[in-house]
Amino acid sequence: MSDIAKMADVSVSTVSRALAGSSMIPEALREKITAIAEEHGYVVNQAARNLRLQTTNTIGLILPMGHETGQQVTDPFLLELIGHLSEDVFKRGYDLLMSKNPAPRQGWLKDLVQSHRFDGMLVLGQSDQHEQINALAHKYPPMVVWGERLDSQSYCSVGVDNVFGGRLATEHLIGRSRKQILFLGPTQVPEVSSRLRGYKDALKDAGVPVRPGQIVEAHFTYDSAYQTVRDLLVSRRKFDAIFCASDVIALAAITALTDSGRRVPEDVAVCGFDDVAMARSLTPPLTTIKQDLRMGAQMMVDLLFQRLGGDKTSSAVIPASLIVRAST
Amino acid sequence: MSDIAKMADVSVSTVSRALAGSSMIPEALREKITAIAEEHGYVVNQAARNLRLQTTNTIGLILPMGHETGQQVTDPFLLELIGHLSEDVFKRGYDLLMSKNPAPRQGWLKDLVQSHRFDGMLVLGQSDQHEQINALAHKYPPMVVWGERLDSQSYCSVGVDNVFGGRLATEHLIGRSRKQILFLGPTQVPEVSSRLRGYKDALKDAGVPVRPGQIVEAHFTYDSAYQTVRDLLVSRRKFDAIFCASDVIALAAITALTDSGRRVPEDVAVCGFDDVAMARSLTPPLTTIKQDLRMGAQMMVDLLFQRLGGDKTSSAVIPASLIVRAST
Repeated sequence: MSDIAKMADVSVSTVSRALAGSSMIPEALREKITAIAEEHGYVVNQAARNLRLQTTNTIGLILPMGHETGQQVTDPFLLELIGHLSEDVFKRGYDLLMSKNPAPRQGWLKDLVQSHRFDGMLVLGQSDQHEQINALAHKYPPMVVWGERLDSQSYCSVGVDNVFGGRLATEHLIGRSRKQILFLGPTQVPEVSSRLRGYKDALKDAGVPVRPGQIVEAHFTYDSAYQTVRDLLVSRRKFDAIFCASDVIALAAITALTDSGRRVPEDVAVCGFDDVAMARSLTPPLTTIKQDLRMGAQMMVDLLFQRLGGDKTSSAVIPASLIVRAST
Repeated sequence: MSDIAKMADVSVSTVSRALAGSSMIPEALREKITAIAEEHGYVVNQAARNLRLQTTNTIGLILPMGHETGQQVTDPFLLELIGHLSEDVFKRGYDLLMSKNPAPRQGWLKDLVQSHRFDGMLVLGQSDQHEQINALAHKYPPMVVWGERLDSQSYCSVGVDNVFGGRLATEHLIGRSRKQILFLGPTQVPEVSSRLRGYKDALKDAGVPVRPGQIVEAHFTYDSAYQTVRDLLVSRRKFDAIFCASDVIALAAITALTDSGRRVPEDVAVCGFDDVAMARSLTPPLTTIKQDLRMGAQMMVDLLFQRLGGDKTSSAVIPASLIVRAST
């Protein structure tokens, strides 16, 4: 850099400021210095500069997948949320660093933060990592988590009212005179566990007992959920409705039912959760609980930038709403 | 680090190797050193370490949007491609740095590379940036571009055979006895320009002249394409088929036609391009040209890692295929 300073007949610090685009250097001089630097092949190493400034102009987007190693980023719900989040991050002139962890080990989240590759972090879903996220929250304020609001949490979360959503779906199926309503989903995931609570609450309020085998474990992936419903049909368990913990599970259920000669909704009514784009286009179109991902993403990014600016923020819960279509 | 060396009674270089997880240090010693380091709050600054090693374990995913500032990452085609690419990158243990540039200025791509934040780069679409990508290719081998294969290109690209795809779609519409087939799309985008060439070739071979106004400029965004088709209908131009340059444009066209009381396909047959997931679920289900994005993404990532390993690679063209559904 001292060579460029000599050639431009200015000090080294002026060269440094000019190349960093500082407004303290007159524009004409900045352009002259930049031209000399380019001519002589001098380049700013952004990584070195970021290291010095302790800034990266990048937001981390972290996908913990402890609960479900098979779930992929190609999942429609994840893709839609990622699409909205990245647009909101790009609009602020930041880049996005995506990292997926299929088998989180102790300390993985802390290590990610200490990699100094982003200024703040969005975490998509708690998966089975609530404890690690919580432990980090005290030391690392610029973090916002998509997921369920838990009693013991210290971190900032944004998510839908899952208990209410579960209740809405179940009350709707009860209102459709369904007598044997199954619940289908990965109940160890915090958000699904809350949807299940809403389901149980609604049944209890309606005076309907929950029978053994009525709550069926299923994965978030299409192939696995499809097989689970096929197995259910072979087992000859009786049911006239399924409340599925996600639209992908609902799509798998509808396909498995139809492939086995059952009519939806005449024989079995199916309700999903999420309202991903394809939900309205299924055959039959899917009744589901809408999570407004556009609004949720915007809220996550707003909260993150408030926290980056030093503000303290609360968590947020976006509303759940019932979208009735032909599958019920 | 010298404090830790003293406490562990080893040399500084042994501490450094142990914290980097080097297998040259026995596991028991590594664990001892790590424990001491953690106890005393010593952390590896990954950014500093990467800077020293000149490695980042990260792949860049770059979205040039010079042609279409309105197009968002929430576009179904882009989202599907991003989903597949990120899965393939994650499988190799790498993270993904996404950067979108809505108004590329001279040198933006070079600056991105010189930011030293990734080891190699995937570029999604040439947009109007062919020259800049080409200029970079000579100096920066680890780059693979999704898009059209151009005569003058020096870079490695993966894309579908767009000319052939355009021909397939148009021949199909001719075969459906359609006499006035419009082309609808952003013709300055290299891939679309090739689809248009296939369209013209097919019409020429069938002895059908291309009339003025038959090639209609339209953006890749839904709202804009919808308005373009509404305007077309108001203009009372006669047509009985539209070949749309993307499925999103086709969806907008079908909706605009239906909203104006036209029947698809009876009054106007509509063919798309891409075969995104929603294409099969539209009303009516969409005839389209399939780009196998799963295969395309895998090929891009394979080629990129070959190039990272020092191999020279050619470009690749994946096949286009016609998927006939009820919209034609």
